[in-house]
Amino acid sequence: MDRRPIGVFDSGLGGLTAVRQLRAQLPSENIIYFGDTSRVPYGNRSRDTILKYARQDMAFLRSFDPKIVVIACGTVSSNCLSVLQAEAGIPVIGVVEPVVRRAASLTKNRKVGLIATRASVSSGAYEGAFRRIAPAAEVYSQACPLFVPLVEEGHFRAGDRLIELAAEEYLPALKAAGVDTLALGCTHYPLLAEVIGQVMGADVALVDAGAEAAKECQAVLEARDALADAGQEGFADYYTSDRAADFQRLASLFLGEDVMSQARQIDITQY
Amino acid sequence: MDRRPIGVFDSGLGGLTAVRQLRAQLPSENIIYFGDTSRVPYGNRSRDTILKYARQDMAFLRSFDPKIVVIACGTVSSNCLSVLQAEAGIPVIGVVEPVVRRAASLTKNRKVGLIATRASVSSGAYEGAFRRIAPAAEVYSQACPLFVPLVEEGHFRAGDRLIELAAEEYLPALKAAGVDTLALGCTHYPLLAEVIGQVMGADVALVDAGAEAAKECQAVLEARDALADAGQEGFADYYTSDRAADFQRLASLFLGEDVMSQARQIDITQY
Repeated sequence: MDRRPIGVFDSGLGGLTAVRQLRAQLPSENIIYFGDTSRVPYGNRSRDTILKYARQDMAFLRSFDPKIVVIACGTVSSNCLSVLQAEAGIPVIGVVEPVVRRAASLTKNRKVGLIATRASVSSGAYEGAFRRIAPAAEVYSQACPLFVPLVEEGHFRAGDRLIELAAEEYLPALKAAGVDTLALGCTHYPLLAEVIGQVMGADVALVDAGAEAAKECQAVLEARDALADAGQEGFADYYTSDRAADFQRLASLFLGEDVMSQARQIDITQY
Repeated sequence: MDRRPIGVFDSGLGGLTAVRQLRAQLPSENIIYFGDTSRVPYGNRSRDTILKYARQDMAFLRSFDPKIVVIACGTVSSNCLSVLQAEAGIPVIGVVEPVVRRAASLTKNRKVGLIATRASVSSGAYEGAFRRIAPAAEVYSQACPLFVPLVEEGHFRAGDRLIELAAEEYLPALKAAGVDTLALGCTHYPLLAEVIGQVMGADVALVDAGAEAAKECQAVLEARDALADAGQEGFADYYTSDRAADFQRLASLFLGEDVMSQARQIDITQY
């Protein structure tokens, strides 16, 4: 048993889709979430800048003595996971391998699509993981750089023409390739499941990065006998690097529940 | 005569529309441009975060001993101009007053529209400037938070359905209000002139923030007898806070010419 919290971070608030899943799976765990809202988005930045920011995000979470850190950000996971793991001294989980394992287990025709930010796709991390885990799979990757700004502006529901048009721009090549499984390599994308399904068809399985990372987190804690006492009710504390008051509008969307606790603002450049 | 350079900064690369105008008007001037590409966009951040970033941008430019600084960013101009001016000790020009003066001189029916980022609109700076400069004008403001990400992703040309759809979402209320002049309060927006004109009609005059700031810069330098020697040919040096190699793709768009000189990357958090 280990009462220390689980640390979770993202460039912004998309990583709350992982927190939602963790809270459902592991209600006794305490969670510290950090969203780097003063520097979001990471998805178009260079690898060096992403690594610099991610190290500060890790250092902030480390100040809470977490037993594990979940990188609930596809861009950081695909560009910096091994460096952050080597530096951490505690288990660090990214979204890439859990997503790829799940996609590999779901596909029947071995044609898998991947959508993510530009930095994630150009890192090659997802393709590399597929080559290791499912070498027979054909992988079709597509960067979708407008999905994050559109979701953050509230354009994510079916019937919203802007997000539908963006989906119609990005996804037809994956549809034409005949993929039967689509990995959502960014924690913002689960909100787009319905819109993506309209283009890809209901028979294409979607893999949720936040949910898969949460399952991986549970498996690692169980294997290390490091779950919290099942008797207690866990809390979730939220920190952001820009104004805390701006947190709630989006947070409720990603968490799928009204956010009761306030976020607290910290200066991430001090870490 | 003053051979010191003109400093220009923006959250990203939109401010190059002001550099383009400065180079055309004042070919003898040396220009130092800084684009904060590792933290772009500013337009959805809080005022405190914008001020913190803008102070660092100013401090970097000050290291070149400029004779004047042009804030070629509507978001910084509308949230922090007076603070930055008070701290600078050299002339500092923003885009708000030049844009408002130009719009006030162009409108015939005294109905003026303003489009800008969310942070610019919510600052109230443009409305405040209209009350001082053109108190009889009716001002209709509209935040257009998706215009910057769309332009930066290359969606700005007439015929591009995504940018046309965004324009059709943001602009009809201004059209219905009967404005005869539309102030473009963000230096990214000149690239959208044709798309905006399709919704607003060719008879609505558009006011370009970068161009107006450049004219204001020339007027201030002339009034202080601080222009460079007309005989020399000026240079423009470009600095960014993220990878310099990413500069050229967008820079050529905003400058309207192929960018020959490379940008150099600096660590803005050191300032």
